Amino acid sequence: MTRKLVIALDAMGGDHAPGAIIDGAVIACERHPDASYLIFGDEAAIKPLLARHQRLAERAVIRHTDQVVSGDDKPGQALRHGRQSSMGRAIAAVVDGEANVAVSAGNTGALMALAKFMLKTMPGIDRPALATVIPTERGESVMLDLGANVECDERNLVEFAVMGAAFARTLLGLPSPRVALLNVGVEELKGHDAVKAAGQKLRNMALPLEFTGFIEGDGITAGTVDVVVTDGFTGNIALKTAEGTARMIANLLANAFRSSLMAKLGYLFARGGLRALKDHLDPNNHNGAVFLGLNGLVVKSHGGANALGIASAIGVAHDMAADDLMGRIAADLKTGGGAPAASGKAAVS
Amino acid sequence: MTRKLVIALDAMGGDHAPGAIIDGAVIACERHPDASYLIFGDEAAIKPLLARHQRLAERAVIRHTDQVVSGDDKPGQALRHGRQSSMGRAIAAVVDGEANVAVSAGNTGALMALAKFMLKTMPGIDRPALATVIPTERGESVMLDLGANVECDERNLVEFAVMGAAFARTLLGLPSPRVALLNVGVEELKGHDAVKAAGQKLRNMALPLEFTGFIEGDGITAGTVDVVVTDGFTGNIALKTAEGTARMIANLLANAFRSSLMAKLGYLFARGGLRALKDHLDPNNHNGAVFLGLNGLVVKSHGGANALGIASAIGVAHDMAADDLMGRIAADLKTGGGAPAASGKAAVS
Repeated sequence: MTRKLVIALDAMGGDHAPGAIIDGAVIACERHPDASYLIFGDEAAIKPLLARHQRLAERAVIRHTDQVVSGDDKPGQALRHGRQSSMGRAIAAVVDGEANVAVSAGNTGALMALAKFMLKTMPGIDRPALATVIPTERGESVMLDLGANVECDERNLVEFAVMGAAFARTLLGLPSPRVALLNVGVEELKGHDAVKAAGQKLRNMALPLEFTGFIEGDGITAGTVDVVVTDGFTGNIALKTAEGTARMIANLLANAFRSSLMAKLGYLFARGGLRALKDHLDPNNHNGAVFLGLNGLVVKSHGGANALGIASAIGVAHDMAADDLMGRIAADLKTGGGAPAASGKAAVS
Repeated sequence: MTRKLVIALDAMGGDHAPGAIIDGAVIACERHPDASYLIFGDEAAIKPLLARHQRLAERAVIRHTDQVVSGDDKPGQALRHGRQSSMGRAIAAVVDGEANVAVSAGNTGALMALAKFMLKTMPGIDRPALATVIPTERGESVMLDLGANVECDERNLVEFAVMGAAFARTLLGLPSPRVALLNVGVEELKGHDAVKAAGQKLRNMALPLEFTGFIEGDGITAGTVDVVVTDGFTGNIALKTAEGTARMIANLLANAFRSSLMAKLGYLFARGGLRALKDHLDPNNHNGAVFLGLNGLVVKSHGGANALGIASAIGVAHDMAADDLMGRIAADLKTGGGAPAASGKAAVS
């Protein structure tokens, strides 16, 4: 890609703003030489941070605003008062065509509300979804929706499958991602009406993805599929359950390695191998959730992300913009809608 | 407890039946000297196993049947043809008052269907739920529903809270368990209608439990509450996601310890501490899911459980029967229904 990409950064969102945001951009700047940055936030705080990093400073413009969406702001408050905040103005830069993508580590609900209101939903999509990359036993997979929609019907789930597959093609470089619906069993008769009907539809559509049917919760981390599709209630809870379980084991493991002198020695010996595992599971290395289905790209970073995490989120933003993810989704929706497969499996009653 | 307890065992259910079932009963027999056993299944297979264990043999009666519910049987098939199977007859022993509780490691759907049909739902309960004990960072908690009901309304969730609390009082010995509803956020306005309405009701009921509001997915393993309540779709997926994540980390950890000679040495040194962690997370040590809300007690073991796992499931069965769990639930339902707390929190709109 030699096309110039512009990334709009909300410098004031997240637990470690603006320091971690600018430090993250410094790392991203090395990784993606084709990108430049519009940085929104408190100029007095950002300028001295930027001054220390010549390369980023040359490719960045600060846009001052003293308004910030706080972690406690409700989505409604953000909609009423947040348009001139660093978050709102980063999204506005995408709306105006000044930037190709916006990145924020701020309040998720506020970001979702502002992004949806300001960018609007893509034609052909009923509801946008929040997707992210998750670590699995075999590498990485995509999961959505992570909480944009607490209730979803079959149409939503089918659209999530299409958008998630486009995201996996872009981000994981897979020509025909394996897509599955999360369910309480793998048989066609399992689950509630929406998931059964979505399964039936996906089996009969011709899409640039391989629909593998249903998977259960333990299939998420097994890595046997590339895209895990579910409603936002279940997806949010499954993602956080996985994160919580990983954290519990990490804490118990740390206790185990502290439990005796022998165990401490053992940790020292095994440190190299354990570090690779830690890196693989570190949320900072998989950071960057994406709102799919809007007329513009917005990436949400974990609020607690460090500079490496912010750099990962900017990397996700970069790759989606460089690969024209929105164009892919629009094209896939046309393909899927226009050419249902002829396979005549009986409808699941 | 000196009252004689009778436990009905389905000897033919699960991946390692009847060997693991009988070996599990041998262990349980040492742990719970007040219990005796009715063992249902193929006498020719069971008898030689029992002959090796004098103490169990003295306290067990074999009831022969050559019919078995297989792992592939659909719930409907089990209802039509499974009444004379080892599973069906173990439940029938509870219906007839011959046994205080039934234990099976067989097909979950079939067991659920047969138990519900043969025992019927308790008066005052709309739908039974499947509950289990899960390992947390601080010890153990109870979670339900794990898949008995893929769609739940607010009444179901409230009843699950009451039944789950009674289960935690019995099994974990807690006088007033902390109970939370699983949700996508902790604020009262978060989630879908059923979970919001259930939260509102539980805040205003006087029950022998401490309702702490909503928790997110990562709260399940944190162990800050004793009972996690959710619908069967979400609960099934959350439980399996946690199991899958734990399995992924265990596999990656095993690889890390094999990755170099140094790491192998490290494992040897740290082995003691790691074994305690492994024991804490081993599903066999938390085995035994319970159908709550029926006119009789039925415990479901993991199909893959080994003898220790079966012994855990029998232990759960024993404790519930000894503690009159059904009586507790019936009394709690009366308390909760009859005496709503006066606290006048505004309804969540």
